[in-house]
Amino acid sequence: MIEDTTYDAFLGGKVHALQPKRGFRSGIDAVLLAASVPAKSGETVLEIGCGVGVASLCLNARVAGLAITGIELQSDYAGLAKQNAATNNADFTIFCADLRALPADLRQKQFTHVMMNPPYFDRTQGHAATDTGRDVALAGDTPLADWLDIGIRRLAPKGTLTIIQHITRLPEVLSAVSGRLGSIHLRPIAAHSSAAPGLFLLQAKHSGRGPFELMLPLVMHGSQAKQGDIESYTPQVKAILRDGASFSIRDPA
Amino acid sequence: MIEDTTYDAFLGGKVHALQPKRGFRSGIDAVLLAASVPAKSGETVLEIGCGVGVASLCLNARVAGLAITGIELQSDYAGLAKQNAATNNADFTIFCADLRALPADLRQKQFTHVMMNPPYFDRTQGHAATDTGRDVALAGDTPLADWLDIGIRRLAPKGTLTIIQHITRLPEVLSAVSGRLGSIHLRPIAAHSSAAPGLFLLQAKHSGRGPFELMLPLVMHGSQAKQGDIESYTPQVKAILRDGASFSIRDPA
Repeated sequence: MIEDTTYDAFLGGKVHALQPKRGFRSGIDAVLLAASVPAKSGETVLEIGCGVGVASLCLNARVAGLAITGIELQSDYAGLAKQNAATNNADFTIFCADLRALPADLRQKQFTHVMMNPPYFDRTQGHAATDTGRDVALAGDTPLADWLDIGIRRLAPKGTLTIIQHITRLPEVLSAVSGRLGSIHLRPIAAHSSAAPGLFLLQAKHSGRGPFELMLPLVMHGSQAKQGDIESYTPQVKAILRDGASFSIRDPA
Repeated sequence: MIEDTTYDAFLGGKVHALQPKRGFRSGIDAVLLAASVPAKSGETVLEIGCGVGVASLCLNARVAGLAITGIELQSDYAGLAKQNAATNNADFTIFCADLRALPADLRQKQFTHVMMNPPYFDRTQGHAATDTGRDVALAGDTPLADWLDIGIRRLAPKGTLTIIQHITRLPEVLSAVSGRLGSIHLRPIAAHSSAAPGLFLLQAKHSGRGPFELMLPLVMHGSQAKQGDIESYTPQVKAILRDGASFSIRDPA
């Protein structure tokens, strides 16, 4: 049971969400994920591992008329996501479930878009975080291949799957997607223009026939600016974080 | 039987090689591949699909005291490779064989380094080239996963595998390597600093324990210069192509 929460603003105040004060807290990654999903009004979206719902709520704020479903393993986070859905007047239904044991009605549904921000670190390597909720969110027990397998199975024909993930997990992600989805577009994310990418966004299409494409990195910070300060972000990133702009994984800018 | 050949210089004249006038001709990709293999004197190298031997001969010119073995499916190309090995005084032994049916003595050998520049295009997609030799070299019948599987099996403990390949094949390559080799380093190769990468170099290590790393692209041409002209290359690329400099896939510059 989460007792201490904070009430945080995203997209320059377009989204507000309760989050645990300690534990896993959503941030920029969730906002980037939501900005890159090419959803249109009337379509359906599934977020696997939605936490308190920040990515889904950001997507909902940008695109009106979506029907969004979230799955979250941890009941405390799922509970906050339900509260956040109500506060933000979102058509956002949350199931508290293990993604490997989806409720029957979810197993029969297909979605136009699936998105996910799975734990970045492999439980089999390194130490657990002191907070259990944070540990599960940072380094869950579920293999990344299972996240992708479940996501791919829930995709409607021509639907898109979008994932944001730590760069070290790229081989696992490409292995899980390769041969099952097409038109795979990979956009690395780098702190600075001269830094090796630390994260990536990958988007792929059910029945996609386009070749794999590697894009130039999305650069988060301008070279002259101080990190951590909103003013240090590049104009493109500032527009995403502060104005709720969309972001094409494939377009160069 | 190849009747028309040209006698071409590589690495500013350090290497000379007979090549078919028509058909598959080695170029910059073979030179980049050779430059990136971290071989030291006394070590063994296997090049799978060596063609007329340009990559192996460039490596031999940079690092003295290597014992290099090449496998080439097409007998015409293997014949030219043997001639080129002799002309360049290289300890370079060529087997004319299908990589899926290696001679018994090769199947029992392990190598410190394995390198390959497999055909870039998937035979199952697109049209065949008019020249048969060129077609096999550009879009062979052997799946890329087989190239990598054979290469991985021939690696000595702590040995490195290096591949240069078209960017569209990255998912296949990472799928084939993921979980079998470690310390995977990926270096995209881009024509210009503002262009999406068209090729990549990937290097991985037998028993490697390092995480996957994505590097910034190797940029071939300076922004102001004309393509195709040796003077248009960036200083780093010029040093590789003209002076036979080595190239670290992992280092930023």
